Amino acid sequence: MAASVEPRQSSFGRLDAPATAPPARNGSSNGGIRRRADSPVRGCGFPPLISPPRKAIVEEEEQDEEDEEPEEDWREAYGSQLQLEVEPSTRDPRDEGTADAWIDRNPSLIRLTGKHPLNCEPPLARLMHHGFITPAPLHYVRNHGAVPKGDWATWTVEVTGLVRRPARLTMDELANGFAAAEVPATLVCAGNRRKEQNMVQQTVGFNWGAAGVSTSVWRGARLREVLLRCGIMSRKGQALNVCFEGAEDLPGGGGSKYGTSVTREWALDPSRDILLAYAQNGEPLLPDHGFPVRVLIPGCIGGRMVKWLRRIVVTPAESDNYYHFKDNRVLPSHVDAELANAEAWWYRPEYIINELNTNSVITTPGHDEILPINAFTTQRAYTMKGYAYSGGGKKITRVEVTLDGGESWMLCTLDIPEKPNKYGRYWCWCFWSVEIEVLDLLGAKEVAVRAWDQTHNTQPEKLIWNLMGMMNNCW
Amino acid sequence: MAASVEPRQSSFGRLDAPATAPPARNGSSNGGIRRRADSPVRGCGFPPLISPPRKAIVEEEEQDEEDEEPEEDWREAYGSQLQLEVEPSTRDPRDEGTADAWIDRNPSLIRLTGKHPLNCEPPLARLMHHGFITPAPLHYVRNHGAVPKGDWATWTVEVTGLVRRPARLTMDELANGFAAAEVPATLVCAGNRRKEQNMVQQTVGFNWGAAGVSTSVWRGARLREVLLRCGIMSRKGQALNVCFEGAEDLPGGGGSKYGTSVTREWALDPSRDILLAYAQNGEPLLPDHGFPVRVLIPGCIGGRMVKWLRRIVVTPAESDNYYHFKDNRVLPSHVDAELANAEAWWYRPEYIINELNTNSVITTPGHDEILPINAFTTQRAYTMKGYAYSGGGKKITRVEVTLDGGESWMLCTLDIPEKPNKYGRYWCWCFWSVEIEVLDLLGAKEVAVRAWDQTHNTQPEKLIWNLMGMMNNCW
Repeated sequence: MAASVEPRQSSFGRLDAPATAPPARNGSSNGGIRRRADSPVRGCGFPPLISPPRKAIVEEEEQDEEDEEPEEDWREAYGSQLQLEVEPSTRDPRDEGTADAWIDRNPSLIRLTGKHPLNCEPPLARLMHHGFITPAPLHYVRNHGAVPKGDWATWTVEVTGLVRRPARLTMDELANGFAAAEVPATLVCAGNRRKEQNMVQQTVGFNWGAAGVSTSVWRGARLREVLLRCGIMSRKGQALNVCFEGAEDLPGGGGSKYGTSVTREWALDPSRDILLAYAQNGEPLLPDHGFPVRVLIPGCIGGRMVKWLRRIVVTPAESDNYYHFKDNRVLPSHVDAELANAEAWWYRPEYIINELNTNSVITTPGHDEILPINAFTTQRAYTMKGYAYSGGGKKITRVEVTLDGGESWMLCTLDIPEKPNKYGRYWCWCFWSVEIEVLDLLGAKEVAVRAWDQTHNTQPEKLIWNLMGMMNNCW
Repeated sequence: MAASVEPRQSSFGRLDAPATAPPARNGSSNGGIRRRADSPVRGCGFPPLISPPRKAIVEEEEQDEEDEEPEEDWREAYGSQLQLEVEPSTRDPRDEGTADAWIDRNPSLIRLTGKHPLNCEPPLARLMHHGFITPAPLHYVRNHGAVPKGDWATWTVEVTGLVRRPARLTMDELANGFAAAEVPATLVCAGNRRKEQNMVQQTVGFNWGAAGVSTSVWRGARLREVLLRCGIMSRKGQALNVCFEGAEDLPGGGGSKYGTSVTREWALDPSRDILLAYAQNGEPLLPDHGFPVRVLIPGCIGGRMVKWLRRIVVTPAESDNYYHFKDNRVLPSHVDAELANAEAWWYRPEYIINELNTNSVITTPGHDEILPINAFTTQRAYTMKGYAYSGGGKKITRVEVTLDGGESWMLCTLDIPEKPNKYGRYWCWCFWSVEIEVLDLLGAKEVAVRAWDQTHNTQPEKLIWNLMGMMNNCW
């Protein structure tokens, strides 16, 4: 069911940038990439960002679509929301003796799978404290093996397979030869909230809490533009899938790299904002998040956004990578590990996870939070809070809280800081809050939250167990 | 919150077709429009369909996207599914003395709101009998007043507001001056399955059963191309919404025409396949379905697809039409009619319905169907069947049936006849079936079906009442 295509040439031509000289980028300097004191970029000539010239030939009747206003700097757009300062990352004693010992990490991250590889989420209260944009050092991490040591100056991304002009793009070419797009996007691990599934029946996955979710402003080249520049072939020419491959040498999966794919339709869809991202919140990527370049697919689970990106291969069939099939699937509840293998459930296309489903989480009160009941607290309302998200660009339009196990629901106030993209798509989480009388809390039977998206779909009441414990979104 | 824009010119220029001569259309003749014996088109010179020339100037790097294969004729594509023959439509005695007395209608349609205006659904078993494509005379109908008598030769669609080249398009110009697109799409009334809501508590709407859903192949000009040809202004120029207005003189709503709007983003999104449709299943539209031209917005509720289309107005604000605000809304459960008016809930943007939610229906067994229990029937499996759909282009990926009120679920076989569009979007319903031991049916506690879409969202268990009784999708 899967195949990869070998490069059609063994030597790669240099991919020429447009002939006319690119003008210097006009944005404010802090909209670009700033070097960090601890950045591995230091000394490798990280270039100023420039944009290629606008298209010279545009049909008049298409022109109206091209009237782009200059992108608003995200620091201005979300300025009131930004609380990005965190304590410095440091060498972590838990990394000593591992292949990741060279990496500085935030000490507050909660490690979910022992010491190595790193799989972690931030404390939920800290995540919420920072609001709309998550500081990169607190962003959840899902690693399958040791972190590759990327070098900006020598890193290349090979674009090959069913393209007329195969290329090896340097990081400078990616950053300077293509317009830089900035996209705010919430990344979610498909396993977010898996712990609840494991409490019902053990899945094959580890215990994600409810903080396997983080939001950044990502900056990169549009995959669509890279593929068009490289001359992606036609549908008739069988250029139907775009495969991504990382740089890790992984212990599992037959020693393969991490890899997966998206369809041609997704890869070329301008409304999806798919990037080859080389900056997060205005800084070069951190090692844990794919330095120097990763795939970004807004509205999609993190598992498709290959980090430490090395190769893009355009193929007739979807990726044949181990992780493309044996990971990130929601199988029906009756399918256990034995059946999944015996009956090849991993390969049934309908169970692949791409776009996120609708989800919501109570973050205040926190777990084990104690609210004293006294003359003071019962005089004022208690504010419940949390986050919600959906996938595929859909907006969250309603969040409700029940205190009586679903008999009645209170409408919450929504805080949606995001501005949608020019196609009306939303890629980020939002926040909700509702004031509750403390005396009502006292009598509460079961407290729960549910969100609705713009298509008037909402979350299911009951937990629906699945072998990988993924996409858990019951209220 | 709403405004309309008056035409900027009082006289309209003729919208010129492209300068080069359009080549004759190459498709097979039955892919075009055939005249019906009872068609109101007779004698008004319904023209052969032609396509405009391909774009002359296309940048090389964009060219790969333009390599369209010729569209497959839908009769060939869905040939094995087509059972379009039905008994002739006739004058219906129930229409005597009404403004609709001139219209031939299928006698089997179930009228839901008395004799006039026509609001009807086909018998569910007949709908299912015809399979993937519903014969146009059996398609559900939602009319707000008397059906306008359209005349192909003299009908025009005015395109005005924030466009540089306002125009009045004749039907010949729409059919000959723009490429004809054919799109299979399932239309669903937002009130489908409302009867279940009314059984819990009366809503403001009438009793739709589960057959307020039908599928056709629609043919028309792409709205996107019409707007670009007319020079839709920029975002900066406040061309943010596209309003549609019909031709009816309606009894309610302050005597207005039926009207609504979509955003600029939707209107210009090529992946959404929005059409100004002038043919249904290869025939001119029937009077009840908007002859000579209606809006088609696949994946969206029927209520946005204005019939008997007279005007398209590009505006800064969304439509100010009565029906845009006072219809097609899902309000939270606690909002009753009094509160909705007192607190202006109709005008809160988050409750508008556009894209369909995920839904599924059991059609076999039918209502009140009796299965005799005897030595013969208990020897063989009983096949349960039904349909499912989602909205916004999302594919149905799973359907499950429970015999025990949701404790356990059986996976159903899916029949998805549709081929997705070039952006991977699905616009149509699909069918499911599952074989059940009759003895298991005997012991069944509660039988229900639920569907999942490609984003791993599924339907809620419990009915969530809302004032308009819309988008009911509980299992």
